[in-house]
Amino acid sequence: MSDRFLVIGGDAAGMSAASKAKRDDPELDVVVFERGDWVSYGACGLPYYVEGAIEHLDDLVVVDPEKVAKRGIDLRRQSEVVDVDPAEQTVTVEREDGRYEEPYDYLLLATGGHGTLPDVPGVDLDGVFTIRNLDAGRALRNYIHPEESNVVSNGEAEYGTALQTQVHDADAVAVLGANKIGLELAEAFVARGIDVHVFETGPSVLPVYGSDVASVVEKRLRKRDIHLHLDTEVERIRGTDGTAVAVEAADESVEVDAVVADLGVEPNTELATAAGIELGRSGAIERDEYGRTSEPDVYAAGDCAEKRHLLLDENVAWPYALAANRAGRAIGSTVAGTPTPVGEIVGTTVMKSFGLEVAKTGLTEDESAAVGLETVSRTITTITRAHYYAGWTRITVRMTAEAESGRLLGASLTGEEGAAHRVNAVATALHAGMTVQEIGSLDFGYAPPFGPVWDPILTAAKVLENGVR
Amino acid sequence: MSDRFLVIGGDAAGMSAASKAKRDDPELDVVVFERGDWVSYGACGLPYYVEGAIEHLDDLVVVDPEKVAKRGIDLRRQSEVVDVDPAEQTVTVEREDGRYEEPYDYLLLATGGHGTLPDVPGVDLDGVFTIRNLDAGRALRNYIHPEESNVVSNGEAEYGTALQTQVHDADAVAVLGANKIGLELAEAFVARGIDVHVFETGPSVLPVYGSDVASVVEKRLRKRDIHLHLDTEVERIRGTDGTAVAVEAADESVEVDAVVADLGVEPNTELATAAGIELGRSGAIERDEYGRTSEPDVYAAGDCAEKRHLLLDENVAWPYALAANRAGRAIGSTVAGTPTPVGEIVGTTVMKSFGLEVAKTGLTEDESAAVGLETVSRTITTITRAHYYAGWTRITVRMTAEAESGRLLGASLTGEEGAAHRVNAVATALHAGMTVQEIGSLDFGYAPPFGPVWDPILTAAKVLENGVR
Repeated sequence: MSDRFLVIGGDAAGMSAASKAKRDDPELDVVVFERGDWVSYGACGLPYYVEGAIEHLDDLVVVDPEKVAKRGIDLRRQSEVVDVDPAEQTVTVEREDGRYEEPYDYLLLATGGHGTLPDVPGVDLDGVFTIRNLDAGRALRNYIHPEESNVVSNGEAEYGTALQTQVHDADAVAVLGANKIGLELAEAFVARGIDVHVFETGPSVLPVYGSDVASVVEKRLRKRDIHLHLDTEVERIRGTDGTAVAVEAADESVEVDAVVADLGVEPNTELATAAGIELGRSGAIERDEYGRTSEPDVYAAGDCAEKRHLLLDENVAWPYALAANRAGRAIGSTVAGTPTPVGEIVGTTVMKSFGLEVAKTGLTEDESAAVGLETVSRTITTITRAHYYAGWTRITVRMTAEAESGRLLGASLTGEEGAAHRVNAVATALHAGMTVQEIGSLDFGYAPPFGPVWDPILTAAKVLENGVR
Repeated sequence: MSDRFLVIGGDAAGMSAASKAKRDDPELDVVVFERGDWVSYGACGLPYYVEGAIEHLDDLVVVDPEKVAKRGIDLRRQSEVVDVDPAEQTVTVEREDGRYEEPYDYLLLATGGHGTLPDVPGVDLDGVFTIRNLDAGRALRNYIHPEESNVVSNGEAEYGTALQTQVHDADAVAVLGANKIGLELAEAFVARGIDVHVFETGPSVLPVYGSDVASVVEKRLRKRDIHLHLDTEVERIRGTDGTAVAVEAADESVEVDAVVADLGVEPNTELATAAGIELGRSGAIERDEYGRTSEPDVYAAGDCAEKRHLLLDENVAWPYALAANRAGRAIGSTVAGTPTPVGEIVGTTVMKSFGLEVAKTGLTEDESAAVGLETVSRTITTITRAHYYAGWTRITVRMTAEAESGRLLGASLTGEEGAAHRVNAVATALHAGMTVQEIGSLDFGYAPPFGPVWDPILTAAKVLENGVR
């Protein structure tokens, strides 16, 4: 009898693992349990769906169930795993028509995460959303724009009416947390003509990206009439007849038609905890370099599992799509017989906000200081094409290195072109443990349409090198 | 008395060295001798000047002579160094009004290179051009479009008439050599409504980029009605009354109004040779890791000097702007007291052709085979944004690794967006000596506007990894 690989959760990590394992070992019996309807979807695309730029929810799906079946994977939707028994190597699955057990040789926990809600009164009112999966995205869009309610669900319903992006019911929306998805949603609301209030407890937007990036982004958000409420603790979401109508802080009350929280992701660890599987300090499931949990033959990947941060040299929660896909794929290889590390992260993240590309990798100086590193940082602003090549815009790079050694610790970039792609060269340098001196000597490409002779990354490294010496 | 640093040649390498040396050691006496009028210009911008997209030749200058003077550098234009005497540590300078000697403590040869002409009858006719400096660019534009002859020269003349890009005298132009500058010029001619014939002795365009890139570019060139004469040896440039009128090969004769050769760059080494300074196997001036030639205190940088190729582990000619700037800057530091290596190259080059970004770094499989490396290569085509994000186009990556070890050897990319910037991450990985396994595990940024979850570079590495095993 062939080995059985059971996967709990049908999104990025789970489907990557299932597909890779089946491809590498076609004899393997691969079963994916998904408690909802959707598998293999791009949750990162939800802001564009909310905006209406993406018409159908189906468009976000990367691999549809038919394709999954063709790959030889036994995909079971509407099937929630409610218990894991590592001693017996079985899981208990709950469906509408009852429960059943399934034995496993290898098990992957890819249970994902859920959006954090603020710990204030009113979070249970209608009109309060987190946005981590397709159903949440659909619910939000329907709420702010009911004319569009008839949305395709796995091809079972037909999307009936044309989008009328200027006709909407919501006049004002509050976004709690000035993080990546929150700001992307803010842009989506603006595109629909909705007034947006962003509430952030910290002093600046996008805290992960550092204060240099924040000031550039804030300027742009304000220019687009987004109301930024920084250093502001939301104390209550006020409701009328069970529906959210206002967000209240100490000094202000803002009337809104909906509230969306983007305050972080909490790993879904109930199943792991109940099975006696250990969690790490971050609160996500602890795992070794191959993605193995504290129980034999039980793996964890995706938003429910920790990632190894190369620069911090510790495990962290990092709910990002690539890390989930990568770990899933590696575990698929391992289960199929080729032990493959799930890899490390260096903290690379990119986004677009009103035409501005924003990118960050590694540690900011604050993040470095928090782990006791002495740093030196420099910010440079240069142009994105040769000075004589039409259409150039400005790009800003802030780079941070260890003060003594010159070892690169991180960089952030903002600009209207080339910031997002440029950051990956810096990420590569971080993986390689390069110094800023080494980065300044890299042989990058040059042609007038793409940058100045010294690419902004090289210029930043050169300038920072002077600070290190 | 302060030390004297003499620099021969006022373009990228020379001016970078002079500026850096003076900045690091203001006591240093820095003199730059330039035999022409122009210093610190962007020769890479000449195709855009020929096209007319850049109106004034002045616009290509990076640092004008006034700024050079402000930096405390003694810039002497129209001053040709005609002799170097390493034993006496002097140079002989020739100006209109006579010759004089200057002593040096440190000397930099930054004499550049000149365009190769084909070894066929007719190369001395009027209307035959190479294009390596501003005067050549001006001559070419004037020749194909005399209405624009009144071009600004260092601000001494005024550009009189508006550009009339549709009015021109040349109907057809031949480009000899399907290389980077040649194809950029071809595009410039097309923009002016000129019929373009490209002659290439090899079987495909852009031989440096590899045949995968070539086939994509050729398709695009033909779509724009450029006549490609591949596998074609030009035998003669035919003239009438001393003016080029046709290009002749074995089986064909093509009537043209001008001929531009882009067949490579020959280093200007006469001065070095006469002074007994050794050349390397490439024909350019040999130098060590600090840019020092065979004579004490004599350095060489830029197109006249060799570069160290990290992957070939040998010195090569590599007439590219960044390598020139970088070596010049490093030598400036060294002369000012901080020994700084001039760095190595990995062979990164990028260009744009009719909206297509083309990029290459490292070695193609043919280049690898030529030095005895056993390789494995894979080509992948994917999309430049998330599949649901409007405006995505296709991007193709070909990646090559050492067959046994999986060590990355090189990659090429073509696509309408993101190819040029993406190549720099691969270049960084080459500098770091990464394997394709390591590259596939890099933590790149992801957001829907910028790529799929697995960046094309990561996908290429993952696919190639299967070939390595």
